[in-house]
Amino acid sequence: MRILGVDPGLRRTGFGVIDVDGPRMRYVASGTIVVPTDDELGPRLKVILDSLREIIREYAPQTSAIEKVFVNSNPTSTLLLGQARGAAFCALVDCGLGVQEYTALQIKKSVVGTGRAAKEQVQSMVQHLLALDGAPASDAADALACAICHAHAAPLADRLRAAGVLDQPAFGRRGTRMRNGRMIGNP
Amino acid sequence: MRILGVDPGLRRTGFGVIDVDGPRMRYVASGTIVVPTDDELGPRLKVILDSLREIIREYAPQTSAIEKVFVNSNPTSTLLLGQARGAAFCALVDCGLGVQEYTALQIKKSVVGTGRAAKEQVQSMVQHLLALDGAPASDAADALACAICHAHAAPLADRLRAAGVLDQPAFGRRGTRMRNGRMIGNP
Repeated sequence: MRILGVDPGLRRTGFGVIDVDGPRMRYVASGTIVVPTDDELGPRLKVILDSLREIIREYAPQTSAIEKVFVNSNPTSTLLLGQARGAAFCALVDCGLGVQEYTALQIKKSVVGTGRAAKEQVQSMVQHLLALDGAPASDAADALACAICHAHAAPLADRLRAAGVLDQPAFGRRGTRMRNGRMIGNP
Repeated sequence: MRILGVDPGLRRTGFGVIDVDGPRMRYVASGTIVVPTDDELGPRLKVILDSLREIIREYAPQTSAIEKVFVNSNPTSTLLLGQARGAAFCALVDCGLGVQEYTALQIKKSVVGTGRAAKEQVQSMVQHLLALDGAPASDAADALACAICHAHAAPLADRLRAAGVLDQPAFGRRGTRMRNGRMIGNP
């Protein structure tokens, strides 16, 4: 299973792609979409939309995970951040990807073991878990951490299927249907 | 000149299309995109994105105007609204449209004459200005008002060109270039 993780922001949007094969995780790609700050809002959102669609075309992930952005007390900043996140979300759903949302707390707990982890700890654990030569830059590390969190949280069925243990699409009782790796009950 | 006005929201996104020919304005279409509230965020944003793109394909506006949404004191609501606005913005720029932003105050001043106008006054003035048989629904009226505000605010050059008085693309001194109806200086 190939997962795209996204850490959205209006100035910098991080992305990270990993392959998950049973308990194993493999780094595929990561980076930061740097959005020009001197442009108007429309062109800035278009950079996020187009860049993420390009990344999806390039790496063909099967699913995606996006960080729930930090809501701060400044409504104008929150609105701008919301718009950036809306653009990132649009790129994912426009390419037909399922999207799972995780809070920073969930991601840190999943990757470092504690929700109080510092940025450097996240970078360091991402480097360790993906056996990278160096620590990725902060935004890319957050996006990779988001993808790793999804790999840990994704139901067993996903991982079994990715490992080839499970045939598509039947799982469990006859007639059980799957959507985004989740059983959606008997019809 | 055909203008698409948009009043974005996560539950209801209003749209309105008008034709502007010199001082005359003509109603083309309007309506409300009703977003299912029981779905996850991704599919909801996709409804806004896809519906607006469909409307743009159908009515082929040349430019667009979007309302600057109300920022309230609840950060979570502001973030959700920002994401809806981001999705609407993405639809516009993804279709290659220029986007102009107007605050509710600017729109009300432009359409009713006062920034303190009530919703009913906006609906009534939109009905009057576009010579409609009845008042449009609130979200559609706000979107039409946004388009009317843009028609009033658009530079003279746009209106002259729309009226056929001005040939494309030259305007003013030789070599002056236009973008979104604005001169962007001599090369």
